[in-house]
Amino acid sequence: MKKIGIVTSGGDAPGMNAAIRAVVRLAHSRHMEVLGFERGWEGLLTNTSRPLGPRSVSGIINQGGTILYTSRCPEFQKKEGVLKAAEILDRNDVYGLVVIGGNGSFNGALDLSKESDTAIVGIPATIDNDVFGADETIGFDTAVNTAVSEIDKIRDTAISHERVFIIEVMGRTRGFLALTVGLTVGAEIILVPEVKFEKPDLIENIEDSRRRGKKSHIIVAAEGVGENRVLAKEIEERTKSEVRLSVLGYSQRGGAPTARSRYLACLFGDKAVELILNEERNKIVGLVGCEITAVDLEESAKSTKPLDLRLLELAKELAI
Amino acid sequence: MKKIGIVTSGGDAPGMNAAIRAVVRLAHSRHMEVLGFERGWEGLLTNTSRPLGPRSVSGIINQGGTILYTSRCPEFQKKEGVLKAAEILDRNDVYGLVVIGGNGSFNGALDLSKESDTAIVGIPATIDNDVFGADETIGFDTAVNTAVSEIDKIRDTAISHERVFIIEVMGRTRGFLALTVGLTVGAEIILVPEVKFEKPDLIENIEDSRRRGKKSHIIVAAEGVGENRVLAKEIEERTKSEVRLSVLGYSQRGGAPTARSRYLACLFGDKAVELILNEERNKIVGLVGCEITAVDLEESAKSTKPLDLRLLELAKELAI
Amino acid sequence: MKKIGIVTSGGDAPGMNAAIRAVVRLAHSRHMEVLGFERGWEGLLTNTSRPLGPRSVSGIINQGGTILYTSRCPEFQKKEGVLKAAEILDRNDVYGLVVIGGNGSFNGALDLSKESDTAIVGIPATIDNDVFGADETIGFDTAVNTAVSEIDKIRDTAISHERVFIIEVMGRTRGFLALTVGLTVGAEIILVPEVKFEKPDLIENIEDSRRRGKKSHIIVAAEGVGENRVLAKEIEERTKSEVRLSVLGYSQRGGAPTARSRYLACLFGDKAVELILNEERNKIVGLVGCEITAVDLEESAKSTKPLDLRLLELAKELAI
Amino acid sequence: MKKIGIVTSGGDAPGMNAAIRAVVRLAHSRHMEVLGFERGWEGLLTNTSRPLGPRSVSGIINQGGTILYTSRCPEFQKKEGVLKAAEILDRNDVYGLVVIGGNGSFNGALDLSKESDTAIVGIPATIDNDVFGADETIGFDTAVNTAVSEIDKIRDTAISHERVFIIEVMGRTRGFLALTVGLTVGAEIILVPEVKFEKPDLIENIEDSRRRGKKSHIIVAAEGVGENRVLAKEIEERTKSEVRLSVLGYSQRGGAPTARSRYLACLFGDKAVELILNEERNKIVGLVGCEITAVDLEESAKSTKPLDLRLLELAKELAI
Repeated sequence: MKKIGIVTSGGDAPGMNAAIRAVVRLAHSRHMEVLGFERGWEGLLTNTSRPLGPRSVSGIINQGGTILYTSRCPEFQKKEGVLKAAEILDRNDVYGLVVIGGNGSFNGALDLSKESDTAIVGIPATIDNDVFGADETIGFDTAVNTAVSEIDKIRDTAISHERVFIIEVMGRTRGFLALTVGLTVGAEIILVPEVKFEKPDLIENIEDSRRRGKKSHIIVAAEGVGENRVLAKEIEERTKSEVRLSVLGYSQRGGAPTARSRYLACLFGDKAVELILNEERNKIVGLVGCEITAVDLEESAKSTKPLDLRLLELAKELAI
Repeated sequence: MKKIGIVTSGGDAPGMNAAIRAVVRLAHSRHMEVLGFERGWEGLLTNTSRPLGPRSVSGIINQGGTILYTSRCPEFQKKEGVLKAAEILDRNDVYGLVVIGGNGSFNGALDLSKESDTAIVGIPATIDNDVFGADETIGFDTAVNTAVSEIDKIRDTAISHERVFIIEVMGRTRGFLALTVGLTVGAEIILVPEVKFEKPDLIENIEDSRRRGKKSHIIVAAEGVGENRVLAKEIEERTKSEVRLSVLGYSQRGGAPTARSRYLACLFGDKAVELILNEERNKIVGLVGCEITAVDLEESAKSTKPLDLRLLELAKELAI
Repeated sequence: MKKIGIVTSGGDAPGMNAAIRAVVRLAHSRHMEVLGFERGWEGLLTNTSRPLGPRSVSGIINQGGTILYTSRCPEFQKKEGVLKAAEILDRNDVYGLVVIGGNGSFNGALDLSKESDTAIVGIPATIDNDVFGADETIGFDTAVNTAVSEIDKIRDTAISHERVFIIEVMGRTRGFLALTVGLTVGAEIILVPEVKFEKPDLIENIEDSRRRGKKSHIIVAAEGVGENRVLAKEIEERTKSEVRLSVLGYSQRGGAPTARSRYLACLFGDKAVELILNEERNKIVGLVGCEITAVDLEESAKSTKPLDLRLLELAKELAI
Repeated sequence: MKKIGIVTSGGDAPGMNAAIRAVVRLAHSRHMEVLGFERGWEGLLTNTSRPLGPRSVSGIINQGGTILYTSRCPEFQKKEGVLKAAEILDRNDVYGLVVIGGNGSFNGALDLSKESDTAIVGIPATIDNDVFGADETIGFDTAVNTAVSEIDKIRDTAISHERVFIIEVMGRTRGFLALTVGLTVGAEIILVPEVKFEKPDLIENIEDSRRRGKKSHIIVAAEGVGENRVLAKEIEERTKSEVRLSVLGYSQRGGAPTARSRYLACLFGDKAVELILNEERNKIVGLVGCEITAVDLEESAKSTKPLDLRLLELAKELAI
């Protein structure tokens, strides 16, 4: 009986548990055993794992976080760490390792793939949505909806006080979350790291939309844009109006996954198990449109997923 | 200046308002006027409309329902009604008419297109997701999430009482809603009108999963499957265990649209305005994967969108 | 070391787990042991229990349902059942038994109290809110908010279609849930079992509020009122307008408890442990205003909690 | 016909609209007219108002924010401003003025009451819950639940990463919000401005609960406590573990009000109209237990509402 390992790595994302459930149950159904390593790469280095069967993953499809825990693991960034992990996989007789995580985790997985005979398959799960080869990652839709719900609430106050609000969302160095959130809350302005903006234009935009009769102003800014606190001050001084900054926090990373994040988790899990059964090696599960695909691990880890700038243009046109 | 008409028709769906907003603002930005007809086809027959500008659609991106109202209109199902509607469009000098609705509305739109010079463009918005040419309709994702949230709650009771629950979701004659909901709540059984099922198999399935250690049993059934009340009784008698039926109601049709329903509304609205500007006639806006497309109105209205039965197989395998 | 037993009985209610957590941790902190009986009275009859410590109740404060399960137990309604339960309590050396449930459970607890030396203390937890001595029960606020959220969504459709909606909420034979829900959704009409209503008056009310310019009509009806399906038909015939019935289901009994249901659970748990420590016997924990009190078990079980009819008058005046 | 004025002042709170609706409809039903002043005290100074009838307040019972807008108004803090406002009230023949707001607004109202013949009645609506005479203010329950929902999500990440989280909630200088939120999320530690804490004790507490087997640590801190960012750094250094700070933002002030906030709005509105009809002057509507009461405006504005420190003790005992 073939044995599969699973590890969740990097920041947690809603739907990771749904993905674990899918991999465990489908592997079982296809006559493979599953071993869950705990605390990300650390579990591989310390050989901390537990066997997972269909009942071990009952009732977790709607749970945020990860039942396997996750952590940062500096040791794994060194060659010795990677060799040790490879050795542990070998010692446990792990035929295929499913790595559930984001771009950072896949870079680690790539290092490991070069030292290990175990077939490695990545499942993209991160609220940053920055995995090349996957139009959408597990957790992204949930984070978007969490941010949208909070901003819908903040708009009540923005309108009541006729204020400008800058709302900072997560996304690390990328603007995927900010762009989709901004478009779907009807933000007047969206700031993403991928596009430079000039402060005078921004001020002009605010004053112009006031002239058109807008009572409040929502600016959705990616955390990767930088000093949003400074920006808030500057807009306040220039426009002589109250500006508030709200930094949406870690709730974007937790909570029950949306149906779509669970749906992707089911389909990605299915594909990952299939890839291992088909003896494919060192791939990540991808998504192109509605099609579940597979991308070479190295290509995904080394490439940069582009942001759709036409959406930014559309959002601007919709905010008139 | 070209004039666009908008009408929302048939059952309401979350995201209709976001679509109205998109069409109105993008039409304005591209130098067209917009006239909103009220109460569906009835507004065309009674010439009840109001002009819509960018400020008329402020603050509605996150509102359920439709600011243009909707209604059933038996008169429009007769030839004279259709001719009258065509005449009203002509009298108001409406160059293009955007019809926001589902399959039933598009059949009406098709009749109208045969009697009118106005270019007709449909935007698929229905929780039933049954529009040929559109992988997903506006409102579907919201209805799925509403049902999923309610079933997540019902599972608390199902587990606490160790009961079987049959949960009936909407979808009229089709199983799209039931299938996606069933997969993403982790239902033990999913019943859709597209697939016949045998009651003895269903009973056997329940008893079998009890033997495997499952404490509760969620059956998600499409309303189109039929007599779920009778089914509940039968299962109760055969399995000698408590069975409860919960019919999820109209909350599936309302509420703030999810980010994804809003996102589709923005993109579909953009495409609809573009089609009219490009002098295309009698199309519906479609979606294939991530690609926004256009389908011939007649083809869409007369064709049946297939249900992906592989998902049903996957759901079954995941419920072990 | 004194030993406390806990049992959850009757229908589950959100916040039962928060109450279990409170009793277990406070008992532990005050140097008592805790034994959790499973599946309600059935666990007492079959002596099915497990010891509960502070870590056994980690992470359950926000979980719906009950980790101790619950069930209907016909055997306990007979004298022999009660005697057996008393004997099991004695055999396990249970000094005090905390019964978490509603009015039905407290009637059972009263029978048991007459045959057992164990001190019995009830914690009111039911979405029906029908426990005499407790202004509010654990779970009531959650059920109210769940129903209110669903009706807020249904109103989108009611307004868009300009329809009359009858929405049936739970509450068994009582109208507590319907009254609070009706008041807080701004229902045009509220029907409770405690107050007879005349159908002609109801029809007149609907037609009258139409004349005043109301576009939609929400009737919130308690399940205890009876034939709401028949009523819907009648209103439809008399007013010649579309009427829809939506029966809110078991989601009212599940889901994460609201802050208020958790708050009551903490305070009620504290009081229950204190009562046992103070060697009080056969009480239920009560609530009068903000004051946590104690009521004699027999008095509570045998008395009927009145519905505040002034609220019904206020709701009517607010619906103009 | 007597005329009532309404003004919403200070920070907005969910349920203000429900209170406006209640006052308007009940005043109308009791044969009074209503005038809504806009943008808080500024509307009184600029005489910006609109008449409000039963249909003006349709569909707002579930809307966050305030349809009358609110703002800070430095001019009103000077004697001339107050005199001008008194003159405007007189000029508009306003018999009674309902002020919906918090403690700051009631201090303004007190100043105004000394210069005006108009009877002033305050309705407590603030998420800070700091109004003397009112056990609970409109909006408090909503803000608590919003914070609790976000922290429930954050706990997913806290557990998955086995981290310490400091979560800062609003409340200005007071700890009402932090205390109720902390108790109901099951926080390990609650920091409120009313109680001094020693950092070494806090560190010891964290290390101690780790030893007892707790995997994550939630500290809920009131914004009034001060430098939570510095505290996070210190705990990180001392405990050698990852500490994250999440500052919950303006979403706490917005969103659809909970049933309880709407319920208080209905009852407070009823009492306010009754007080004016009974020719009472310069009161705020209060709440003691379940009893709706009235408190002298001066007494309320000048007194400090105490925080229930026994709850803090209970929360500590429950966090073992």
